Amino acid sequence: MPLGESERWEKTYSKFCGLETDFSDDVPSLLSFNIDNGRFDFVVAPLINPSYRPSLVDERDSDSHVLPFAGSDLVVSPLKWRLRVIGKISSWIDLDSEDETLRMNSETALKQEIAWAKHLSLRACLLPTPKGTSCANYARCVNQILQGKLEMEVIFLLSFTRTSLHQSLIFLLRSHSAMKLWLRIPLRKSNSEYPIDSWEIWNSLRLLCDHDSKLSVALDVGSTLPLPSKNSRGRWLGESVKAAIISTDCFVPIDGLPYLQKSHQDLIGSFFHGHAYLGAKGLTRSDSFITFIIISGIPLDDLQTDFGAQKHPHKPYLDYLSNLFEKMEPLSEQERIDFRHRDCLCTPLQPLRDNLEAHSYEMIERDSVKYTQYQRAIAKALVDMVSDEKASELTIVLMVVGAGRGPLVRASLQAAEETGRKLKVYAVEKNPNAVVTLHDLVKTRGWEGTVTVISRDMRFWNAPEKADILVSELLGSFGDNELSPECLDGAQRLLKPNGISIPFSYTSFLQPITSSKLYSDVKSRNNLSYFATAYSVKLHSVARLAPCEPVFTFTHPDLSRKPNNQCYKKLLFNVPSNTGSALVHGFAGYFEAILYDNVHISNEPTTETPNMNGWFPIFFPLMKPLEVHPKSTIEAHFWRCSDSTKVWYEWSVSLPTFSPIHNTNGSSYWIGL
Amino acid sequence: MPLGESERWEKTYSKFCGLETDFSDDVPSLLSFNIDNGRFDFVVAPLINPSYRPSLVDERDSDSHVLPFAGSDLVVSPLKWRLRVIGKISSWIDLDSEDETLRMNSETALKQEIAWAKHLSLRACLLPTPKGTSCANYARCVNQILQGKLEMEVIFLLSFTRTSLHQSLIFLLRSHSAMKLWLRIPLRKSNSEYPIDSWEIWNSLRLLCDHDSKLSVALDVGSTLPLPSKNSRGRWLGESVKAAIISTDCFVPIDGLPYLQKSHQDLIGSFFHGHAYLGAKGLTRSDSFITFIIISGIPLDDLQTDFGAQKHPHKPYLDYLSNLFEKMEPLSEQERIDFRHRDCLCTPLQPLRDNLEAHSYEMIERDSVKYTQYQRAIAKALVDMVSDEKASELTIVLMVVGAGRGPLVRASLQAAEETGRKLKVYAVEKNPNAVVTLHDLVKTRGWEGTVTVISRDMRFWNAPEKADILVSELLGSFGDNELSPECLDGAQRLLKPNGISIPFSYTSFLQPITSSKLYSDVKSRNNLSYFATAYSVKLHSVARLAPCEPVFTFTHPDLSRKPNNQCYKKLLFNVPSNTGSALVHGFAGYFEAILYDNVHISNEPTTETPNMNGWFPIFFPLMKPLEVHPKSTIEAHFWRCSDSTKVWYEWSVSLPTFSPIHNTNGSSYWIGL
Repeated sequence: MPLGESERWEKTYSKFCGLETDFSDDVPSLLSFNIDNGRFDFVVAPLINPSYRPSLVDERDSDSHVLPFAGSDLVVSPLKWRLRVIGKISSWIDLDSEDETLRMNSETALKQEIAWAKHLSLRACLLPTPKGTSCANYARCVNQILQGKLEMEVIFLLSFTRTSLHQSLIFLLRSHSAMKLWLRIPLRKSNSEYPIDSWEIWNSLRLLCDHDSKLSVALDVGSTLPLPSKNSRGRWLGESVKAAIISTDCFVPIDGLPYLQKSHQDLIGSFFHGHAYLGAKGLTRSDSFITFIIISGIPLDDLQTDFGAQKHPHKPYLDYLSNLFEKMEPLSEQERIDFRHRDCLCTPLQPLRDNLEAHSYEMIERDSVKYTQYQRAIAKALVDMVSDEKASELTIVLMVVGAGRGPLVRASLQAAEETGRKLKVYAVEKNPNAVVTLHDLVKTRGWEGTVTVISRDMRFWNAPEKADILVSELLGSFGDNELSPECLDGAQRLLKPNGISIPFSYTSFLQPITSSKLYSDVKSRNNLSYFATAYSVKLHSVARLAPCEPVFTFTHPDLSRKPNNQCYKKLLFNVPSNTGSALVHGFAGYFEAILYDNVHISNEPTTETPNMNGWFPIFFPLMKPLEVHPKSTIEAHFWRCSDSTKVWYEWSVSLPTFSPIHNTNGSSYWIGL
Repeated sequence: MPLGESERWEKTYSKFCGLETDFSDDVPSLLSFNIDNGRFDFVVAPLINPSYRPSLVDERDSDSHVLPFAGSDLVVSPLKWRLRVIGKISSWIDLDSEDETLRMNSETALKQEIAWAKHLSLRACLLPTPKGTSCANYARCVNQILQGKLEMEVIFLLSFTRTSLHQSLIFLLRSHSAMKLWLRIPLRKSNSEYPIDSWEIWNSLRLLCDHDSKLSVALDVGSTLPLPSKNSRGRWLGESVKAAIISTDCFVPIDGLPYLQKSHQDLIGSFFHGHAYLGAKGLTRSDSFITFIIISGIPLDDLQTDFGAQKHPHKPYLDYLSNLFEKMEPLSEQERIDFRHRDCLCTPLQPLRDNLEAHSYEMIERDSVKYTQYQRAIAKALVDMVSDEKASELTIVLMVVGAGRGPLVRASLQAAEETGRKLKVYAVEKNPNAVVTLHDLVKTRGWEGTVTVISRDMRFWNAPEKADILVSELLGSFGDNELSPECLDGAQRLLKPNGISIPFSYTSFLQPITSSKLYSDVKSRNNLSYFATAYSVKLHSVARLAPCEPVFTFTHPDLSRKPNNQCYKKLLFNVPSNTGSALVHGFAGYFEAILYDNVHISNEPTTETPNMNGWFPIFFPLMKPLEVHPKSTIEAHFWRCSDSTKVWYEWSVSLPTFSPIHNTNGSSYWIGL
């Protein structure tokens, strides 16, 4: 039973849980037994006889020689090859052996197997774990494969009939670029037997192959207990893990059925997120979110054996995993909406320079939690300003600066009603399109006499009177990045000497993260300037390597601050030592704001306002990922710079190594004044 | 007296030795005293009153405020400003101070001074040494300046008459891009007072500014004795050192005149190489090879004082340096020829794929030392093959494969004559243009009957008889990089079973080097593929960080070798610990060949054949320079790969950090078969 099976789902595409098998010459039977009978979605099967070694082939026979592949391309349909078989590359291959014959054999065999897999248009091949601690030559061969030299060789290497050659060419053209390589990497604690952290092996291959997006990890959970520390496991969240291999040794038998311990359940659960998405209705098909699950190893001896001849010995494991999947909590409505944005790079809004469009307002206004917080803050401020006794005589002048289509006007009026205070509201908005809506609201909601709409930029409006309270929502994902400081500095002359600004203050935060996905996506844009740009991202496949540190704080009103709002912050992050080594692809940014008194809003993970969804985090990439080793400190520098027309950030790191300064003079990314 | 003064030299361009001066409001007198009277070529002078601090300026006066610059732009001619003044940026500037006022003042002042210097079109400004160990904010400001944001600000910042504005705009357009920044870096040993290696400070700024070629070092030799170790000083040879500042404290008085100790003499001598070039006749003018010398500090008290009122107190120092320069050994003829190639990136020849042109043959044939070595090797082989007794009866069959325009034919015939052996020569050449010359030589030199010209590719010629000796010169800068192995493997069937190949074997060598110049040049080509290309380079401004290691060896004839000649070598380099930290920009490659018996040719520095000039070294760059710290090991990987149409190298490093593998599948650089 495929995980995440659903009625609306075409079975041919639902390939989630597979089984690692031995070499079989009879591929049709192999597929029939494991897929039709065992209900697995795919097999991970060796493509060539494991006893084959290129050097044992007599070269004099080479004219008529046929490699001992499993079957020919014609034994099952092309679609079956593609969807039901992951090629398992021979595990004897050792590309960094000191033995030159073995090394040469390994290179020839690897390339022959890959060429065959490409000929079959397989979706992926599982590469064996590098044997030693050194893997430069392995990386070189993999890198040559990834960069596609083998395409033409396929044709020379194999002998086809004219028809199948033609067919295979078409197939190649259609799909060769899609073949992925999954590198089998054990998830294990380093100890005396394995002195090398297995993450280091992955990292060295990945760096030597320059983050090629077609190279991923197949994380082999194996049987070693206990699992590595949570921090150590957490590193893999930011890596491109396309498959998880679970050995039957990980299971414990209870009443003749296999079960997983809690720690393993949690681990497997974390690989299901993509399946949950595919299970959801009406969403596009895509493999890219999936972590494939692969069961490996021989079944337990003492499993129930009351299944008939038809029953597959690994079926109980599949059943257990399906069951685990079924028990997962379904995605919330908001999670479903945000799903398609997971780890997608978006350019942050520029609401000051650009006039927002209706759908952006709609997105913003949908965040009801935020407006509830504003209403609470305004209510508190009103009560603090006007005692109960004076409630009926005093009228508070409140200006909503940047009123948009009125959500804060509504929150203000509701706060007044709730507290029984009298209010006079000015709704100041620079976008003439939103002003149309505001006028309409005043008419339809009966706000005449209470709300005055002002069609001006808050920085240049000459108000007829001063305000007691200035309310605004100008914050970006990173606090000041939508120029709230510049706007409110321009508007603070509208406030009475003891007037209140809501928000009162806001602070930005940063933390170093691993995110292969984001790094590859930026890199694939093929221009270094994309590394000097900040992005708004719904972070998901991310390892957060150290707690957040505060960056810039702005308080309002503030008459003493320098007019240009330039700031500089040096940040130090300590990666917990039980994390092991890790790779920093950039920094995730957040904000926390004090609206008034104890009323906060935040998207910073540790202080996050529950269910507030108005802001994705911001992501500042690094051109060159930063390797950090246990106990090393990360020293980063962030600058907020400005001139007469724009504001921008520059950033760099200086520990453990130096990066170039990113976005000099705002050449790639800036926010217009 | 300008260093390197020559009659054919226009004085206005010969600016080599300058003097660091105090601030003076009277620039015309400053120039007249130091240049016209003192005979210095330029002054390094502060541009603004050292007591000026931006925060002390009353902002209410800002409308009429004039910055206290030294004079106006009109006090001396634009050309004098440009050629006679290097701007000395205020030394109180501290951009990484914890004191925010000082930091802000520093940033404003730096930008004002630079803007003024650009307005004056100065060629360079001398930046003060960073104050502390951290210099990220300094780097950020310098980086903003280097990337040119200030150009337009100049115009807003300063007040001009209409004419001078126009003039300055033209001047700006013509020359702003040329203004260089020289960062003053002390050459000192790290000790308790200076715990930081000063190279590290330069390195951090340079990396943060991403190797901007407009940023260079002004190396301040100061008075500290003894000088750092030779290895430590050697690092600077590969850096962009545009000026050397020599303090009067470095000199010792002898008979009332200043002298330098031997170690200092040698150090200064190493900065003169560019001057020697400029002193040579008929070569193009260019600043780019020059290291400017700057004298700094107050003159010794006990110097001779018998010079009149006209005499300049620093004149004795200038005289001493001029004297030192005059005593330098002049460049040899060959050095002069090669001078223009120093540190220039050339694409290596592809003599197999391309037919060489006449001027290339001319270059090759000019290397008389090489042919002398060949003649010695052939003579030895002839004597070993044919005893004196049999000299008159036996005729040795010698084939020159790749005969070109015949230099090896000549060397063979001379060897035969010298040893009294009888020779029959086949001159095999694939280039039909060279064959024309060969035929002509046979006629004009009277070689008929002895030399047969064969117009064929050696790999495909069916010879009428087999050869006793096969002579070839197919080696490239890196030994096998012009496909000598492939050609000779194809030709070895022409040889008798006990025949001799000259060369007998060859080995390539590599060593890690620092070369800012080469790195910047590759980077300026603005395409990463240029980092995956090898270059032929007359290495000069280079720090060789570790001894060479052997890479690939080929022996001829060799019937047991694999036909594809693919090889892989892992190399380990240990940087001597007294070098300190350093930056590896790539690897320099060389070769050594055994022609026959004990007759060698080599361009590897420690075994170099004297006066052989046929091969520049090869340079393999790294995309991302590699930081190495004391006691760290460099692990590099080199592969020689091939397919049916080409041969190429791939390379990477894995220690201390990983690089991507360069030139995967020969995508950027390959040698055609």
